[in-house]
Order: sequence, then structure tokens, then C-alpha cells
Amino acid sequence: MRAVLTLNAGSSTLKFSLYQALKEPKLILSGMVDNIAGAAELILNRGGKRTDTPVQADTPQSALDAVLSGLSSDFAKLDIVAVGHRIVHGGTRFSAPEILTPETMEALGELTPLAPLHQPFNLAGVRIAQIAFPSAIQIGCFDTAFHREHPWVNDTFALPREFYDQGIRRYGFHGLSYEFVTEELMRRYPDLKDKRIIIAHLGNGASMCAIKNGKSRASSMGFSALDGLPMGTRCGQIDPGVILHLIEQKGMTTQEVTHLLYHQSGMKGLSGISGDMRELLASDAPAAKEALDYYVFRARREIGALTAVLEGLDAFVFCGGVGENSAVLRQRITSGLGYLGLFVDPIRNARNASQTGTGPVQVLTIPTDEEYVIARAAVQSLNSL
Amino acid sequence: MRAVLTLNAGSSTLKFSLYQALKEPKLILSGMVDNIAGAAELILNRGGKRTDTPVQADTPQSALDAVLSGLSSDFAKLDIVAVGHRIVHGGTRFSAPEILTPETMEALGELTPLAPLHQPFNLAGVRIAQIAFPSAIQIGCFDTAFHREHPWVNDTFALPREFYDQGIRRYGFHGLSYEFVTEELMRRYPDLKDKRIIIAHLGNGASMCAIKNGKSRASSMGFSALDGLPMGTRCGQIDPGVILHLIEQKGMTTQEVTHLLYHQSGMKGLSGISGDMRELLASDAPAAKEALDYYVFRARREIGALTAVLEGLDAFVFCGGVGENSAVLRQRITSGLGYLGLFVDPIRNARNASQTGTGPVQVLTIPTDEEYVIARAAVQSLNSL
Repeated sequence: MRAVLTLNAGSSTLKFSLYQALKEPKLILSGMVDNIAGAAELILNRGGKRTDTPVQADTPQSALDAVLSGLSSDFAKLDIVAVGHRIVHGGTRFSAPEILTPETMEALGELTPLAPLHQPFNLAGVRIAQIAFPSAIQIGCFDTAFHREHPWVNDTFALPREFYDQGIRRYGFHGLSYEFVTEELMRRYPDLKDKRIIIAHLGNGASMCAIKNGKSRASSMGFSALDGLPMGTRCGQIDPGVILHLIEQKGMTTQEVTHLLYHQSGMKGLSGISGDMRELLASDAPAAKEALDYYVFRARREIGALTAVLEGLDAFVFCGGVGENSAVLRQRITSGLGYLGLFVDPIRNARNASQTGTGPVQVLTIPTDEEYVIARAAVQSLNSL
Repeated sequence: MRAVLTLNAGSSTLKFSLYQALKEPKLILSGMVDNIAGAAELILNRGGKRTDTPVQADTPQSALDAVLSGLSSDFAKLDIVAVGHRIVHGGTRFSAPEILTPETMEALGELTPLAPLHQPFNLAGVRIAQIAFPSAIQIGCFDTAFHREHPWVNDTFALPREFYDQGIRRYGFHGLSYEFVTEELMRRYPDLKDKRIIIAHLGNGASMCAIKNGKSRASSMGFSALDGLPMGTRCGQIDPGVILHLIEQKGMTTQEVTHLLYHQSGMKGLSGISGDMRELLASDAPAAKEALDYYVFRARREIGALTAVLEGLDAFVFCGGVGENSAVLRQRITSGLGYLGLFVDPIRNARNASQTGTGPVQVLTIPTDEEYVIARAAVQSLNSL
């Protein structure tokens, strides 16, 4: 069977999915190697059944080896014709999926300074897949691509122009998720085609995207994966003076500040408990409640801001692990926004109904599927060869 | 005649006003020493008539000397009973004007790391005034004080709690201006007392403040004077990843980044022409137009965000040099916000009418007067002795 492998290679995880290589790809199984270089595990989801197996995986290479040996009987039956890679940064050049050649890989490597914590791992994933599947084509799918048509005012910072020209822009991320949800939205609710929509991708990372005519107009995320909404362990919006203060007055190094803002801040930092929303929602600790208060507050502030960009709102969509699963946070984030015409039926929301709006603004929950977008792009690239 | 002197001592300017020491202080004259340590000038406004005189002023001390000698015949007739100082940072402790004792001066000195570009000059102004007017009381008025009752979610960043405890908070600035405008607003429009109001202080610095029940609930400004709206030469909101990138990847020092963000960014940086709105509005250059587009875009985004904080909007108020004088920018900033009930009469706006709203949201322009607030606080302190 012709199949497509999708890979999302991070610093400590290697996520993967296998799809039948159809025009509308069909999922065979998905999984991840978690805790690479720690107590690594191979986690498999096959038809809704999950298995966890301890594995040896100290490097991305050995993580992929663990997948190949753990799934050897599957791979024996499959002809992997394409590998689709999630790549965080496509810069200004890559506004669509692209077959990864030595030239494109070099261009992507040059973007590493724009996403030093993600890009090198993504590209390492490509290199090991090229070795493991030498006859498959390798396709890059970019988290920034969906946002490449932002108007200039949404894309720039108020810095001298040469910084923009050097690539210091608001790229926006979570683009594969927004692409999936936007298409699904247009398919299910064709009347929203030319309407003003905000999609909230709320997972471990979090951002919002303003959509008009099916295209991204603005995003809360920015130049790096730090800006905008507070996240599990990332700070979200912060005063630039704080960064300068931490370095100049507190004597922190940029490496320490980077670690603080990416790994010790957000919900984890504020609560002092966890970056996992489920833990915070289950906790009685006042600091957990306060961290959630902040999360809701900043989310509502961002809804207001993106609604101003869109000059009004017709639909609001939740996706991502938190957005799809936390009825409490959906309810709280959408409260107090009646002035926008945004009202939610608490009973339908508590039941995780996909449509919960009771006012002029539609309120929807649409499960996202970034891997599907990658697999489909891989099949399309194959078919265009 | 008993009189109050107000001082606003910056790095290159010393602004001052003289008031009769009445419960409602009456302005005698105002002025500034501009370009301290450069081609210094003493600028005087007396009854609407302006005079400019070159002076020797290399230091704050010599700037005050220039004022004293330039106005010697005025001072001969006046008994300066109090000097009121604009002090940018009152930290968490100073939520009201305060008589400056050695103890309070020490406490204010400890806040210098929070506003290194302003606080030392403000405090130097106090010290030279103590020497020049040894029998006058010295009163500090704080730009942060008006915001001290912000709810915690408006005040914190998503960092570990110890940073908040160490003073890394969203203090908010332009508080003296917001205090004046809020009082004036309540006086002229008593029906707004418990309503939801945004005040936009748009001058060389710029911020917005969300007011409910006459009190500040949130501000676009932050920990430093950099955050929020783009300004004449300051960047406004920027991704923290940009700061880390400039230092780590571009090899800039924190001093260089500080200079860039405070002095080379904002309208000046984006336009490459000027940080002065009047020059940009008069320019035909595409880059001037684009810088203004960005200014308007960010202002509208912030109106949306603060409206979400207030859960709706009843009045929007312009103040500050730009807000009071640029009909074009007022018109553009309030456009496209009809979904909030915000509509402006273009003819009344072009005539600089104080009331221009034609929808459910009142739109007002109220000239601010920070010096008046300082002078009045000084008189009140005198009377409470």
C-alpha cells in the first residue's frame, strides 16, 4: 500500500502519523516518541487504542529508529512514497508546501536564527527521514505559510525599515492548524466564506488568527513563538522593557531569559504548579485559579483586538487541545463579550457541542488536524510530479 | 504672591510652570529649557505669547539657573511655597502625591532600575529645586499612581510569581494626564460617572487607559514606557523574541537595543523621516503614509482590546498633542469601529469640536493639563500640613 509518513520533530519529541496516500489521505496510525534523551517512550494510537512502550532514544536519529523497529511489521506492508514534515519557519519565501531539495534545505537552515528552538530539530527530522526513506520525496509544510498574505501593518513592528527587510516581522504560526480549521469551516458552513472569523488555536502553544474571505489577516503570534497569548510555559505578550531589565538590572544572560520565557513562564510560571491546563483546572490552589484568570483575561483582550482588525465579528472558533476539550475555558473566554454579539449556550457548551453560539456571532468548536494537512500536501506534491 | 512651581525634569528638557497657590491653581506662565547640553533655549509662554531665548544650560542645575535668571523679575514678586515634581515612577508604594523627604527620595531612587531613562532626571530636578527653594515644600506626583488599583490580571505578566513580587508589573504611565481628563470628564459629563471609557493620551509618548467608575482598570502601557502604542520614537508592542534576536543573532548590546527602542523606533523608525506627527501628516512620502497607517492600525487594535476589558464602550476620549490637534488621525483611529457603536461626525471633528460622536458611544476631545494636576496636588499638600 502506498503510504505517506508525516513527521513533526521537536527538541524532545518526534511525532508521526501514517496515512494511505490518497487524495483525501486516510489515517493508518499515529504516535510519538516522547522524552527523547530522557526516559523515552514510543506512544502509539491505532484505531483509538493507545500503547506505550519504553524505547532507547537519545537522538532524533535513534527516535526514528525506534519508530521503524517498533512498527516494522507495518512498514513491511507499506510503500512510503512521501514524507511530509512540519517545519515551523518558512520565512517570507515559503508560502506553500515545498519539495525539500538541497537548495530549499539550505534556505530553511538560514532561517534557524528566527526559530532557534524549533527549526534545527525540524530540519534534523528531514535529514534522518531522507536516509531512512531514500526513495520517498520529502515535503516541507510551514507553520508560517498560511499567514503570508497579511497586510503590511499586521506584519511589521515600529522599528527602522531595515529590520523588516532583514526578516524581523510578525510571521504568525500554527498555520497548518488554521488551514485545516478554515477549510473545514468553509466546507461545513459555506455562508461564512466571506465573513469575519477569529480562530483560537489553544493547545500547549496558543494563538489566535483573524480570518476574512478565508485568509489570515492577522495573528496574535508574531516574530517568535513567544508573543500573544500566554501558553503552557511561554509568556505571551510582554513589555520589551522587561527583557532589557532582566538582562541589565538582574544580570541574567540572554540564554537564561530565553529559557525563562519559553520554558518557565506562562501558566507554569504564574501558577507555580503546572503548564498543563487540566492540572490547573483540577486544582484548588489560588495560584492555579489566578493563572487561569490571566489566561482568560488575555484571550478576551485578544478577541477584542482582532475584532477591531476585522471591524466586527461573525464567527469565533475554538480548536487545539484546550479549545476542543475545556468547556470551562470556552465558557469563560467567551463571557462578557455580549457587546460583540457573542453569547454561548452553557448547556450545549458543556456537552462539547460543535455549535454553541446563541447570538449573531456563531461560536464553534472544530477539532484541528495538522497531520492531515501535511499528509494531503505530500500527496498533492506526489501527484504534481 | 504665594506661588507654586511645577517641574518636569527630563534628560534634555526642563519643563516648568508657575501657578498662583490657590485651591484651584491659576497659571501665571509656563515654559521649558529645551536642548540641555546642546543649543539650549529658554522657551516661555506667558498669556499665549511665546518667546525663545538662547541660554547656557549644560546640566539640570544650569537649566534651572537659566530659568531663575530669565524669570528673575517674576520670581522677585513671587513667594514659591511649593515645588511640584512630575516623577515618572512611583512603583507600587506611591499611589498619591507625596511630600518628598529624604526617606521618600531614597525609596524613589530605588525605583531607578524600573525607569532608568527618566527617574534619575526627575530626582535630579527635585535636588536642584531643594537647593534653589529651600523653604518650599517639594511634592512628588507620579505618572504611575493613577493606575495603582488595576486588577491583578491587568498588572501581571505570565512570569514566575517572584518577578511580580520584585516589581516586574504593568505599572501604566501618563497617570497625571488621565487624572486630569477623567476629572474634567466627570465634571462636564456627569452621566459618564459609572460608564466604560477609554482615554487615548496621544502625544510624543502615547498610551490608552480603560476607565470604569472613574478609575483606571487597564492601560496599554506597561512595565516601561516602551509598550503598547507606537510613539514618536518608541516602538510600542513588540515580540520579546525580537529583543533576544537582536542581542543573540545581531550582536547588539542591551544599550544599543535600548537606544533603538526608545529613540530610533516608532514613527521615526518606520517613516525614516521624523517622529513628529505633524511632519508625517504633511509629507507625501509613501513611508510617512505607511508609518501613519501603522499608528492608526495599532491604536484601533488597542481600542478593541481595552473595550474587551471593559466589556463594552460608552465613551472614547482623545487628549495629548496629537489627540487634541490632529483631526485626520482622530477620524482615522475611530473609523471602522461602528461595530462598537463608535461613529464620528467628520465636520464637527474637522472643526476640533469637543463632542463628535454620532452613535451610542460618545466621542470627546479634552485638552489635558498635567501641570495643573501637579500644582493642585502641591497646594493640597500645603493645606494639609
